Amino acid sequence: MSATTSTQIRLASYPVGEPGDDSYETAVADLPELGDGQVLLRTIYLSLDPYMRGRMSTAKSYAAPVQLGDVMVGATVCEVVESRSDKRAVGDVVLAYTGWQTHAVVEARETRRLDPAAAPVTTALGVLGMPGFTAYGGLLEIGRPQPGETVVVAAATGPVGSAVGQIAKVKGARAVGIAGGAEKCRVLVEELGFDAAVDHRSPTFDEDLKAATPDGIDVYFENVGGHVTEAVVRRLNRFARVPVCGLVAWYNATSAPEGPDQLPAFLRKVLTLSLTVRGFIQDEFVPTHHRSFLEDMAGWIADGSVRYQEDIVDGLENAPEAFRGLLRGSYTGKLLVRVGEDPTRPRA
Amino acid sequence: MSATTSTQIRLASYPVGEPGDDSYETAVADLPELGDGQVLLRTIYLSLDPYMRGRMSTAKSYAAPVQLGDVMVGATVCEVVESRSDKRAVGDVVLAYTGWQTHAVVEARETRRLDPAAAPVTTALGVLGMPGFTAYGGLLEIGRPQPGETVVVAAATGPVGSAVGQIAKVKGARAVGIAGGAEKCRVLVEELGFDAAVDHRSPTFDEDLKAATPDGIDVYFENVGGHVTEAVVRRLNRFARVPVCGLVAWYNATSAPEGPDQLPAFLRKVLTLSLTVRGFIQDEFVPTHHRSFLEDMAGWIADGSVRYQEDIVDGLENAPEAFRGLLRGSYTGKLLVRVGEDPTRPRA
Repeated sequence: MSATTSTQIRLASYPVGEPGDDSYETAVADLPELGDGQVLLRTIYLSLDPYMRGRMSTAKSYAAPVQLGDVMVGATVCEVVESRSDKRAVGDVVLAYTGWQTHAVVEARETRRLDPAAAPVTTALGVLGMPGFTAYGGLLEIGRPQPGETVVVAAATGPVGSAVGQIAKVKGARAVGIAGGAEKCRVLVEELGFDAAVDHRSPTFDEDLKAATPDGIDVYFENVGGHVTEAVVRRLNRFARVPVCGLVAWYNATSAPEGPDQLPAFLRKVLTLSLTVRGFIQDEFVPTHHRSFLEDMAGWIADGSVRYQEDIVDGLENAPEAFRGLLRGSYTGKLLVRVGEDPTRPRA
Repeated sequence: MSATTSTQIRLASYPVGEPGDDSYETAVADLPELGDGQVLLRTIYLSLDPYMRGRMSTAKSYAAPVQLGDVMVGATVCEVVESRSDKRAVGDVVLAYTGWQTHAVVEARETRRLDPAAAPVTTALGVLGMPGFTAYGGLLEIGRPQPGETVVVAAATGPVGSAVGQIAKVKGARAVGIAGGAEKCRVLVEELGFDAAVDHRSPTFDEDLKAATPDGIDVYFENVGGHVTEAVVRRLNRFARVPVCGLVAWYNATSAPEGPDQLPAFLRKVLTLSLTVRGFIQDEFVPTHHRSFLEDMAGWIADGSVRYQEDIVDGLENAPEAFRGLLRGSYTGKLLVRVGEDPTRPRA
């Protein structure tokens, strides 16, 4: 007999600044009876991603905010525990978008079945999922790195940044990663194959970045903002491309930072260097690039060109604290919350 | 017997803020004997353009600064008064780049002969010259206006802005011009065929802009910066394109403006709206677009689709004051200095 309730973490208030515990409420909801074509899912992994901070705000964006009282959104890997669809069988492991909860009833067609034999199921939330596709689409469609060019990415050990740097290497470019702390920088060079790594927390960050980019910067994959952006912009070459994918350093900002106003100098750089600055969300590249992404990335993982790291936090109740850590840069790899047992990878 | 001297306005010091009279010095230089292939030119018109402010600065840019003691640069329309080239005859009127002076000796091949019967020779400095091509290349290659979209341009009565709006109309878009003062706004709608005009000096500028762009803004051709940019950015639609052509409002700025820092909010707009912000200078489009520009623009002038206005100031000695007026927005049309008599258009 399967669960008929779901433990849920819901949005209790729109946070100002860092989302505290009072931004959330935990509740147990009764689940509906399954209708035709529906499945009951048990959450195995919940993906935590920076974009979620944007959904906790009513500021105009590309996606509607989470409504107060609604379950926090998020991609998940789940096990089918009950099915009224001939497309999904009990025991199937699927990719879904059921959010911060232990169980959910959804249409079977809204899930994608995963093959645990082809790749660890967690990769569907990382390197073979939305973060990997974000890197692939933004880098190849906007960044367009050429052999010998220099590609810089921050949050470089994370699921997007690590894919950006490694895809840049596949394309023959020099990959320079920016990360916080010596250990992450070591991971970049020794484990992920970046050509150089720069610690943005170092007091010599500007000089270190300069030394790591002797020929300037041709592509800056922007996913952090803040002082990293300011330093990188000074190193951009003529005709450099800046895919703008995220600005996590500013997501918790409660007001415009104090001056001086950097916008005039930034636009002057755009003008005098013929820069291309292009925001995107990965959805827009799905029709044109998703098929090639799945083929290319699976191949790059298989041949060792692209490696990935994961940080797994146990227990749905720890998601709020883990999410704060994500925004602070406390994790090295792709952050996942293990909500329930993983039948494909039993714990030792 | 032709002149063997040239009266020149040279750069005396790099200005801080608005270039005062002490930024310039006037001198009379002896000209060299003509070598083979060279011509002696007498300046008829000197073009004054905002980019010259950038050349009066040692800040890194796409072009080297004018060196102290050198003649101020600029495009000119000249008459050939002596020739040692079989390519140019005495009496030819040519486009050259001889700067702020009355005469110059140059290679004949560095000039382009103009046909006064085909178009007024002043158009080679305006609508059929660099400003017109700047509008054409930036709007069509980066802005890519689609039928029914809304295109906004500031400094809209000027040589670049007026061409941007009128080309946008040719392409089926709605053209909204921003200018300073009621008279310029009248010119935009009544004489240049814009769909709407907005006075950026009005206390109700933000509301007026909103009323003039009921469907938002799809293309913002950026050539001013300042508070106009801030207001326009709030009206941009998803996937809007922003060709960055100039930032004249900030050219005389002596330091970064006081805060708050607008850069984070700007980049957030870029991200959430998938904006394309792309700086350019017209040179980069010459190989791909200059031939079609000359054909298209000549046709549009002939059929009345594109009209132009000129402001002509008499006397080289008045160039410094005229240039200050240009940066302040004191002129309506393309600003020219008449340095010497125009044989193609004798004064009444």
